[in-house]
Amino acid sequence: MEERVLISFLLDYYSVLLTDKQQEIMKMYYNEDFSLGEIAELSNTSRQAIHDVIKRCHKLLLEYEDKLKLKYKDDLLNENKNKVISKLEILKGYISDTEITTKIEEVKKDIIQSL
Amino acid sequence: MEERVLISFLLDYYSVLLTDKQQEIMKMYYNEDFSLGEIAELSNTSRQAIHDVIKRCHKLLLEYEDKLKLKYKDDLLNENKNKVISKLEILKGYISDTEITTKIEEVKKDIIQSL
Repeated sequence: MEERVLISFLLDYYSVLLTDKQQEIMKMYYNEDFSLGEIAELSNTSRQAIHDVIKRCHKLLLEYEDKLKLKYKDDLLNENKNKVISKLEILKGYISDTEITTKIEEVKKDIIQSL
Repeated sequence: MEERVLISFLLDYYSVLLTDKQQEIMKMYYNEDFSLGEIAELSNTSRQAIHDVIKRCHKLLLEYEDKLKLKYKDDLLNENKNKVISKLEILKGYISDTEITTKIEEVKKDIIQSL
């Protein structure tokens, strides 16, 4: 995965661990595609200061993922969820009783929405 | 939930965010039930220093849960998993074809083990 896209994903998981100011700068840079100069102007600070914040938070986000692995676990969970859903789909194909297939469909929805 | 038990659970989620030394002290205190004096002796430091580490890490763990809510989300996931499994159990009761009930059993196992 491209580093920039990865950081944008990691922000979804770990931005709560950054300060408000850090979150704001990181989101402007990675999610809204502002340039360093634009962020510096909007934040009323220097381009170098913004660069330092981004560099430091970039490192922090990678460290958090290295330790907590929330994105990795979430990706794995989604992969496994899709496998279970496929199995239920196949199972449905074996059954003609619509009352039962409706119940399988319900379970599928529960898995998608709540797991 | 008793505070001491809660902290012990939170250590399962967030101890990786503490330093090695902090982890060691917190695990001795919360999981292995050592006293402050015993930990101080084993760590070759003062009782007060151990007390400070525990107080600081206790606060940190509650802050991490407040921000990331990993325990809360995990509890909810397990609750929802149990609901889905119950529904599959009930569904199995409607079906006499053993080939199909075996497949439902397989899906149940997948949910328990992989979600």
